[in-house]
Amino acid sequence: METAIPYKIYLDEDEIPKQWYNLRADMKNKPAPLLNPGTLEPMTLEELSVVFCEELAKQELDDENPFIDIPQEIQDFYKMYRPSPLTRAYCLEKKLDTPAQIYYKFEGNNTSGSHKLNSAIAQVYYAKNQGLIGVTTETGAGQWGTAVSMACAYLELTCKVFMVKCSYEQKPFRREVMRTYGAQVSPSPSTETVVGRKILEEHPDTNGSLGCAISEAVEMTLDSPGYRYILGSVLNQVLLHQSIIGLEAKAAMDKYNIKPDIIIGCAGGGSNLGGLMGPFMREKLLGNEDYKFIAVEPASCPSLTRGKYVYDFCDTGMVTPLAKMYTLGNGFIPSAIHAGGLRYHGMNPALSQLYADGLIEAVSAKQTEIFEAAELFARTEGTLPAPESAHAIKVAIDEALKCKETGESKIILFGLTGTGYFDMQAYEKFHDHKMENYVPTDADLEVGFQSLPDLPNL
Amino acid sequence: METAIPYKIYLDEDEIPKQWYNLRADMKNKPAPLLNPGTLEPMTLEELSVVFCEELAKQELDDENPFIDIPQEIQDFYKMYRPSPLTRAYCLEKKLDTPAQIYYKFEGNNTSGSHKLNSAIAQVYYAKNQGLIGVTTETGAGQWGTAVSMACAYLELTCKVFMVKCSYEQKPFRREVMRTYGAQVSPSPSTETVVGRKILEEHPDTNGSLGCAISEAVEMTLDSPGYRYILGSVLNQVLLHQSIIGLEAKAAMDKYNIKPDIIIGCAGGGSNLGGLMGPFMREKLLGNEDYKFIAVEPASCPSLTRGKYVYDFCDTGMVTPLAKMYTLGNGFIPSAIHAGGLRYHGMNPALSQLYADGLIEAVSAKQTEIFEAAELFARTEGTLPAPESAHAIKVAIDEALKCKETGESKIILFGLTGTGYFDMQAYEKFHDHKMENYVPTDADLEVGFQSLPDLPNL
Repeated sequence: METAIPYKIYLDEDEIPKQWYNLRADMKNKPAPLLNPGTLEPMTLEELSVVFCEELAKQELDDENPFIDIPQEIQDFYKMYRPSPLTRAYCLEKKLDTPAQIYYKFEGNNTSGSHKLNSAIAQVYYAKNQGLIGVTTETGAGQWGTAVSMACAYLELTCKVFMVKCSYEQKPFRREVMRTYGAQVSPSPSTETVVGRKILEEHPDTNGSLGCAISEAVEMTLDSPGYRYILGSVLNQVLLHQSIIGLEAKAAMDKYNIKPDIIIGCAGGGSNLGGLMGPFMREKLLGNEDYKFIAVEPASCPSLTRGKYVYDFCDTGMVTPLAKMYTLGNGFIPSAIHAGGLRYHGMNPALSQLYADGLIEAVSAKQTEIFEAAELFARTEGTLPAPESAHAIKVAIDEALKCKETGESKIILFGLTGTGYFDMQAYEKFHDHKMENYVPTDADLEVGFQSLPDLPNL
Repeated sequence: METAIPYKIYLDEDEIPKQWYNLRADMKNKPAPLLNPGTLEPMTLEELSVVFCEELAKQELDDENPFIDIPQEIQDFYKMYRPSPLTRAYCLEKKLDTPAQIYYKFEGNNTSGSHKLNSAIAQVYYAKNQGLIGVTTETGAGQWGTAVSMACAYLELTCKVFMVKCSYEQKPFRREVMRTYGAQVSPSPSTETVVGRKILEEHPDTNGSLGCAISEAVEMTLDSPGYRYILGSVLNQVLLHQSIIGLEAKAAMDKYNIKPDIIIGCAGGGSNLGGLMGPFMREKLLGNEDYKFIAVEPASCPSLTRGKYVYDFCDTGMVTPLAKMYTLGNGFIPSAIHAGGLRYHGMNPALSQLYADGLIEAVSAKQTEIFEAAELFARTEGTLPAPESAHAIKVAIDEALKCKETGESKIILFGLTGTGYFDMQAYEKFHDHKMENYVPTDADLEVGFQSLPDLPNL
């Protein structure tokens, strides 16, 4: 055991980054612009600002500035729960008997239970700064909704959350946490919006999906003066805010002169993976370093590994702009797996472009093997991971075991995005051997692809 | 805002204490010894070792050595989740508009969700070291049981937990966390023990209590070769292990030359309060510094504020040794308040002696005012506290508001023992205004006192 490297590396408070990193600025092939679905022209700042706060709309469109200042108020909020620890998984390494070194950046040490708070506070801050009275949003697993509720409580804005129905039912206590922070939470699809009622009529037994919840939140925003919509993943602005993860991780590693060989993140909409890998990808894009990046997605919702790289709506109700991304089709309804945060049909446009350019790899994993990895991790490293995070754990373990075979001492970094305290129903199913491994057939995927907009020239 | 003091003070890994502090060594009036209920003579090491691991029995009897080495294996485990942050509650101070400075030592950043892991790993380590195959224990809120499960998973011992029935029912997911770590969990009173069956016969609708769960765990230990019983609070050995909280807190404060005026902890069996205040109490006992110590207990289970300082059994089934302590009587069955960790009839013997000597103060608080404080804290400081911890928050806020009146800039330190993620049923009741404020009448207390053993000469 190298005594020189502690179990946990904490930056000092004054080492917390004061600027976010904007990955797009260093990409040679920029992500394709968001398009207005009516005109098929790139969305303008004015158009975006109907739905988003103006400053966030600016960030969404900014492909040029590599670094963007973090406002002081957000820096102060970050100090309440950041820096997050970069942890050396000594016990997991020992258990696996691997020559690999495993590190994870743990974002679960805050009440939202995940990295989502990094962007929630930023988005709510800009809403407050613009003089708004509240925000609407959606949540899958509930982590994003909790984060937004916390940020709104702190900055005293009102908060309306549409929670994907199967998560709402699987996690009644998540709703109660949001309520503690003063949020109003509805299961989605709900009867509160036109699009929700339409989906309920067509699919009365639907589990809901992030795409559907987004439609409802956007619709309510457009009907509510003084409100804007905010989103916890998929958007480029979210990757910008989440770059704090990678910036801290890289600064902590640099302190000890550690260079990761492999960087692994779970991928739903891409916010955690993009945030963790961003500052490392910069070095790769600038030709200074090389790293292997691996996105891990659920086999049941395989947007990168089995999706199409085309323009699609970000939501099921087709009310959002069009984004060019790896997508399973906005009409794809994923099965009710217990990683609600990864049940999304598309992938962030910048990550999609990087994947298309061969700069990142992607793999998928099945639910039970995810929970096997989660339990092994809990028992050796102590922390009970969120099912989403366990996707990254699974592949980190796989890579460490490859090293055991080859004898290589690779350095593996993965993002432990959050804790699984509100996922115990899922763990219970796993313990009782009642967990299913749904993998869509090609025919299943074809149903989703049917929902892609007919845009032959894009 | 003093920029010199960060929001969170983390010690470096090599600053984590390597010795525990044994408060009893510096007490002029030692806590009264545990007595054998048969002979009324002080318990010997041999007698204690039937129930406890030998090394823990030694620690239990050690009133002499102020510092005891922490074995390297336990130090290594501590590195997985320690040091815990000492946090300046800047946002709460601002919200209260108080000139007071408020600090809290936060022990919730581990999957057990509380400080309990500090003693669990120690006790399980000594069991393993003695060549045992497993441990039995009880749990109230579930934090201790989770901590023991984690320690047993890590050291590969088997783990049997009796969980107080009302917590078992209020917190189904707690059980599932313990199961993730491989523990076997039963609601107490159970039909698995003689004492459990007896209590169920007499009180079929009982909510259970820590005292009853202890009886069951001890009985099972005595019937199971290769097992020993471990306890999460009340005992002096537990305060010894929990001194890591106070040692770290004091080291962190010393770094910034901060001297607390008031030190506040919630008090059930006394482990958190004793652990937090120990190293500060040392300075008071040695005459170097003065501090005000406040124990906060639930109004529904007021052992210090309304109990008697006499010899009593530590459990309801009267199978344990006798301890001289503030007690409501081993037959006192507390109401099913949502702070399961504080539903205990007695108080640690060393704390009891200090309280009898006027060295610490005690106050009690009602359930709804506890949750009001908890919600305010969550909304301002981010972290959702456990109901137990919220007792300390409530009194810290009260003290800070007194400072606002007087204009004094007192420095307040309290123990934020854990998170409330598994207490959302309680928060729900609070939000729905369905929470009751039970305060026992003197007649209610008299029923408990009737159960005190008849020991006229002690």
